Amino acid sequence: MKFFINTPHKVVEEGIEGLLTDPGLTKLDTFPEIKVVLRKNTDKNKVSVISGGGSGHEPAHAGFVGEGMLTAAVCGEIFASPPVDAVLSAIMATTGEKGCLLIIKNYTGDRLNFGLAAEQARAMGLKVETVIVGDDIALGQDVEQRGLAGTLFVHKTAGALAEAGKSLEEVAHIARKAAQRTFSIGLSLEEGQKFQNPEKSRLKTSEAELGLGIHGEPGVESIPMETANALMKRATDRLARYLPAEKKDYALLLNNLGSVTPVEMNVLLHAFRKSELAEQVKYLVGPAPLMTSLNMNGFSLSVLELDEDIVQALTADAAPVSWSIRKFGETSSVPGPELPKPLPFAPSRDEKAKKVIRTIAEELIVLEKELNALDEKVGDGDAGSTFAAGARKLLELQDQLPLADTGQLFATLGRVLARETGGSSGVLLSIMFTRAGNAYKKEKHAGKALDSGLQKMKELGGAREGQRTMIDALQPAFTVLAENGDLGTAAQKAREGADKTMKITHTAFGRSSYLSERSLTGIPDPGAEAVARVLEKLAGI
Amino acid sequence: MKFFINTPHKVVEEGIEGLLTDPGLTKLDTFPEIKVVLRKNTDKNKVSVISGGGSGHEPAHAGFVGEGMLTAAVCGEIFASPPVDAVLSAIMATTGEKGCLLIIKNYTGDRLNFGLAAEQARAMGLKVETVIVGDDIALGQDVEQRGLAGTLFVHKTAGALAEAGKSLEEVAHIARKAAQRTFSIGLSLEEGQKFQNPEKSRLKTSEAELGLGIHGEPGVESIPMETANALMKRATDRLARYLPAEKKDYALLLNNLGSVTPVEMNVLLHAFRKSELAEQVKYLVGPAPLMTSLNMNGFSLSVLELDEDIVQALTADAAPVSWSIRKFGETSSVPGPELPKPLPFAPSRDEKAKKVIRTIAEELIVLEKELNALDEKVGDGDAGSTFAAGARKLLELQDQLPLADTGQLFATLGRVLARETGGSSGVLLSIMFTRAGNAYKKEKHAGKALDSGLQKMKELGGAREGQRTMIDALQPAFTVLAENGDLGTAAQKAREGADKTMKITHTAFGRSSYLSERSLTGIPDPGAEAVARVLEKLAGI
Repeated sequence: MKFFINTPHKVVEEGIEGLLTDPGLTKLDTFPEIKVVLRKNTDKNKVSVISGGGSGHEPAHAGFVGEGMLTAAVCGEIFASPPVDAVLSAIMATTGEKGCLLIIKNYTGDRLNFGLAAEQARAMGLKVETVIVGDDIALGQDVEQRGLAGTLFVHKTAGALAEAGKSLEEVAHIARKAAQRTFSIGLSLEEGQKFQNPEKSRLKTSEAELGLGIHGEPGVESIPMETANALMKRATDRLARYLPAEKKDYALLLNNLGSVTPVEMNVLLHAFRKSELAEQVKYLVGPAPLMTSLNMNGFSLSVLELDEDIVQALTADAAPVSWSIRKFGETSSVPGPELPKPLPFAPSRDEKAKKVIRTIAEELIVLEKELNALDEKVGDGDAGSTFAAGARKLLELQDQLPLADTGQLFATLGRVLARETGGSSGVLLSIMFTRAGNAYKKEKHAGKALDSGLQKMKELGGAREGQRTMIDALQPAFTVLAENGDLGTAAQKAREGADKTMKITHTAFGRSSYLSERSLTGIPDPGAEAVARVLEKLAGI
Repeated sequence: MKFFINTPHKVVEEGIEGLLTDPGLTKLDTFPEIKVVLRKNTDKNKVSVISGGGSGHEPAHAGFVGEGMLTAAVCGEIFASPPVDAVLSAIMATTGEKGCLLIIKNYTGDRLNFGLAAEQARAMGLKVETVIVGDDIALGQDVEQRGLAGTLFVHKTAGALAEAGKSLEEVAHIARKAAQRTFSIGLSLEEGQKFQNPEKSRLKTSEAELGLGIHGEPGVESIPMETANALMKRATDRLARYLPAEKKDYALLLNNLGSVTPVEMNVLLHAFRKSELAEQVKYLVGPAPLMTSLNMNGFSLSVLELDEDIVQALTADAAPVSWSIRKFGETSSVPGPELPKPLPFAPSRDEKAKKVIRTIAEELIVLEKELNALDEKVGDGDAGSTFAAGARKLLELQDQLPLADTGQLFATLGRVLARETGGSSGVLLSIMFTRAGNAYKKEKHAGKALDSGLQKMKELGGAREGQRTMIDALQPAFTVLAENGDLGTAAQKAREGADKTMKITHTAFGRSSYLSERSLTGIPDPGAEAVARVLEKLAGI
């Protein structure tokens, strides 16, 4: 495993420095010994809301400092509680007469260091309340419950009330209520790797873990590796056991514990929707990395039982970009538009146009094997079949085409080719004819319309003349037609262009760009050859 | 590598379903064949802004659908362009008289499918403009430049003008301007792993790659694995070469290409600050996963040259939570508070108190070896040394203590123990004395104050009586003292408590929780033994 770090023991310090490019944030100048991140404009007329703990859980905790959430975060080293003096510094730097609330995740180190700092601050005459969050339900309700990502619900609710100017008593009250009503469970496929001495996962490829902590503590239960749906079901089933039997409304926090991709997080969210619990969920925080465990390949679910006060506090504005909450609802859909039919125009008769279409199509069918053989030498061997497939469809549809209206005919060819001809050649020719149809509407000149279509094909396809593509035959021919030249001259120019491709042995483009000079010499591009043959045939009728 | 998926070919579909739990979003009911995500309340009186492309880049593109950004996103399968009909459906479903802008990343597949859909829509009479974004500078300026994460700048600026009701011409104009002024470069340590047939990285542990695409295309240059600072310097140096020589103002987008942890992304941001380019950066988007390449362990930098119109469009409100922009500034700090001195009170004399302190300290020094020996059997062998270290400090400071004021003395013991005694025992005793000091201020009763301190120690430390800790001796003794009992009785109770710990062979707590019954039987807890010995000594003076 490789990491974007300079040296392991500087990761926390340098990461905080990066965060501090946010002009809303600052640090105490006792940094980096004491790592306290705080708002630049702390309002000491409001209750200070402080949290923190070991690092390695980013964006928690410093990423949640900002209006409406934390006043300050006290950061320890990776997975290590910050020292008492750091916590005390944060309290002293931000606490005015309204007092201070410390939100502490339930780990011995955090309880001791934050708890002692609180006592010391009280000894100095400051008003300090503490709330200890133990939202992890993995170990059952009787024993010490760890603090997991559900702690963010406590930060948010307390932060909202503090921002609104409420008293310490009120801020502490909602924090304790939120803490009591929050339940979390984690599930992981691989634990996070420490920057210092990263280790291989202890989990086998057939294993996952349920009920794990955020410091590499093993899960309470080893479970088999299964589908996202099955794994999510295990987590929601376990969680549901600890929730009140009565149906309540909840907010869900879906936390990426580290390295799960955004699309997988959304797959997990979709899996969650299938649980009974989903019906009770009204708001969603995430899915996002909110309280990570380094690069753990896992997720955690936290639910908070709602009441009116909590909803108001949860949904109040908050500055930290890492916080976002939205309503969680049923998915919906709207009717897709009815796409134009491949043959949107009424058929019309024109014997000359019909003969042109038939001649082109029949020639391409005749050429199928020959073009395939050419393509086997310089490409993937299917050029002939691709053209022939489109040609057969045209013959099949010949009496349904708007033959008497050149613009409509071009547009129709565009639609038919897009549907019936595979690969990029089909789309490229479709683009050419569709644009030709649009151009013909403005100026009724078939040659100019086709040339306009070819320019669009070149623009979108990215190839120019001289790169061994059908453009080498099409461009000289269409230039003639656009300038009112006759079909014979156009065919002659196409032939010259196709022959030239035999000498093009270096190209950065298309099917032949991976082939050597030797294997290309003397072989024409199959697409250009097809164009030349078809035009020669047309010139003869 | 393990993934949270159900089956590889359903990942895109199910991920979108998860995203659609956002009540602001919906899909076309031709889903999942045609994967179009759009706003629930599309305002056809505004220009429709559509983007999309292959999936595997989440949150791009569907995660940026919302007010002020995209009107709709057209999603292909992993790394595969969506079909023409999907793009056409998105155009038809969202485009009114004001028209539609397609923002296309510069890849052949996207150019062809979006380009053809645009032509077809025009054939139906709709106003459609396209802008092709090629912000990748890795391949130089002469050849085809790929579309990378800088495309989001185009989404945002175009989206803002569309939201403001501007004309298609104006929306397309700012989009083209933003596209022309955006420059990006990617750097990766490991490429993303496909859900289907994940492969080991092609990169060795000593290698990184500069200038890579977002579909697993190898980097233009293989570079040695280095520190975050050195790697960032390579990226910024390369980028700086392509920027105008004249100093301009820029917005920076720092994109997590997949599995880089948030703290590493901030380390990279800190590294970026050291570049000359940083001085020119005024706004920052990220660091965050914005346009990922599955779980690629890499980042990309995109800069957009600013002018007034672009700043206004970039910073206008936008609903998608995945979009956030903030000012980018110098880091700052504020003075850390002056922490209280370990000896905050004036010394005072009290011969009795002094004798108590001396007796305790001398006894703990005498016991050092004996307690270490006990601890070697049931713990890590340093209990005696830990207590003795605190004791020596107390002897050293005996004439500087506020001996005549019991409350001040407790508070001072709290501060000295926190600083001078290592490990959790020091913090625990510090908590006890600090709380005792605070309690004594309210009621001048030493026994009750100490008992109050002990309760706080139990609360924060988490241990109860009967778990082989010093609490087993402290609690019965302090109960006696709190009830006005004499020191002799207290010492006797402490002795009984300490002796009981010899029989406690199962404990979930503290130093002995990992030891077997056999190794614990008959050995007292060293902390409890120390408490009993000290109290017995005190009772004798």
